[in-house]
Amino acid sequence: MTANYIGNLEEWKQEFIFSAPVQVRFSETDMFGHVNNTVPIAYFEFARIEFMKEMGLMQRWLKTGNELFPVVADMQVDFVQQVFFDEKLKVYVKIARIGTSSVDVHYWTVNEKEETCFTGRGAIVQISKHTGKGHPWSDQEIEMLQSKQLISAKK
Amino acid sequence: MTANYIGNLEEWKQEFIFSAPVQVRFSETDMFGHVNNTVPIAYFEFARIEFMKEMGLMQRWLKTGNELFPVVADMQVDFVQQVFFDEKLKVYVKIARIGTSSVDVHYWTVNEKEETCFTGRGAIVQISKHTGKGHPWSDQEIEMLQSKQLISAKK
Amino acid sequence: MTANYIGNLEEWKQEFIFSAPVQVRFSETDMFGHVNNTVPIAYFEFARIEFMKEMGLMQRWLKTGNELFPVVADMQVDFVQQVFFDEKLKVYVKIARIGTSSVDVHYWTVNEKEETCFTGRGAIVQISKHTGKGHPWSDQEIEMLQSKQLISAKK
Amino acid sequence: MTANYIGNLEEWKQEFIFSAPVQVRFSETDMFGHVNNTVPIAYFEFARIEFMKEMGLMQRWLKTGNELFPVVADMQVDFVQQVFFDEKLKVYVKIARIGTSSVDVHYWTVNEKEETCFTGRGAIVQISKHTGKGHPWSDQEIEMLQSKQLISAKK
Repeated sequence: MTANYIGNLEEWKQEFIFSAPVQVRFSETDMFGHVNNTVPIAYFEFARIEFMKEMGLMQRWLKTGNELFPVVADMQVDFVQQVFFDEKLKVYVKIARIGTSSVDVHYWTVNEKEETCFTGRGAIVQISKHTGKGHPWSDQEIEMLQSKQLISAKK
Repeated sequence: MTANYIGNLEEWKQEFIFSAPVQVRFSETDMFGHVNNTVPIAYFEFARIEFMKEMGLMQRWLKTGNELFPVVADMQVDFVQQVFFDEKLKVYVKIARIGTSSVDVHYWTVNEKEETCFTGRGAIVQISKHTGKGHPWSDQEIEMLQSKQLISAKK
Repeated sequence: MTANYIGNLEEWKQEFIFSAPVQVRFSETDMFGHVNNTVPIAYFEFARIEFMKEMGLMQRWLKTGNELFPVVADMQVDFVQQVFFDEKLKVYVKIARIGTSSVDVHYWTVNEKEETCFTGRGAIVQISKHTGKGHPWSDQEIEMLQSKQLISAKK
Repeated sequence: MTANYIGNLEEWKQEFIFSAPVQVRFSETDMFGHVNNTVPIAYFEFARIEFMKEMGLMQRWLKTGNELFPVVADMQVDFVQQVFFDEKLKVYVKIARIGTSSVDVHYWTVNEKEETCFTGRGAIVQISKHTGKGHPWSDQEIEMLQSKQLISAKK
């Protein structure tokens, strides 16, 4: 069964071009012998931030005194196939949709045989420290969010 | 906005009776000053397993040589409100639906003011080591899954 | 063999009075079936901070704008006995020695049978954000550090 | 001040040749803005296991049905310099001493400027599942432990 955020699975996969490598650590396994289910969300965070760096957004958020910062609003993880110690994974990331002050980020994790292990999605919101609320993307930020992608994410 | 797995929010909340306490550890915060988004899924796992112990299911799965074990098929987390170091949370858990070899588990986390911090849901599947596939619940297991709950989870 | 920071083991144990409870989470086990060796240091941090709260020190460090904060300078963990999923542990903490701007903290973790599982020690230094260096304890802080203990920690 | 397991610091550093790369994840920081003190021990585990794979030992321990497995007996971490989000570290590992059924492993972590961030050491013991006790290294295992190193670790 395909997750509700995936339309046509093959098309969905083909829209990913950016990925970050992750190697499963021993400390990320559990007593059932596989990667514990709490771990892939950390892989997603790592890959998403690598992507945000590639687009130049993370640098802006981390600048001292910057009053805007990203917050994870929700996250979905689908565990398609068990993953084990020492596997070398690729975590693909794409921006699926751009909202006023948020983006919908999709994730696709494959093993060395290019088999799907995890899929996922989640919204990131740009928050203003001042108001505590969502802060709209500037035109320049929208350009950044649309770069490094095959598709131009729909606004 | 209410997550897609919640119908009427007030009714949804009233169906929870079991909860497990969690206190936020310093090591669970991140440089943005709040609990990192990778952490609540570990709180959910802790509370779900406490519930599975209460129902007597976890003990069966952990018995040496038992060939059935539970696997997380998917997980959704909604981050409703930021949580900070040292907060004392209650993580409520209920069985929302019972399938042939799976259950849909819902989660509701509140802080000391009884404000909603996180909500979530995810399917757990009982897998057979032998076949690698879902193994149907026995009548006794269904009784266990329906116990310790206000509602009787729909099959 | 006793660790180098323990003189007489029975006397060393008797000097602990403060402890914090920890229950082993499933996600803290690894594929060898026991608690992963990276986990007890997080238990120590949790218990140390509970103790620092009890003494009133943690509150000072967390006050917004406070320019002093604690840093872990070193940490030793001795794994005396394997620990497994769901065990309920008590993590004892004491201040073994008070330096000019540091303290030597000792840790003793026992299971429900009161058997020793982990022992440990480590120095905590109070750092000034301004100078980046150790900041001497005030008389009031030394009083705090000597409270809640059977022994009066040697300066 | 140099840790008690380091004699001459420059000589100690020069004996390392194997290293594993680690990039600091956002989820590994804490609210003080730096890498949390519970994290480096996981970097050490990762690097040690990479080294054990390089020597061919990890593969033996992971073979199904193998009745020998490694256990961490103790661990020391010295936090020499704060580390921050996104830093790229090299974690050096060497075998400092070979005992009957144990080894003393040393760790040296540097940042991109080759500055020392963490040092550490800890004993690993090869345990027999059958007896629950240390199982002596075979001659072949001692050869493995002495390979991939500049120094020949003293027995």
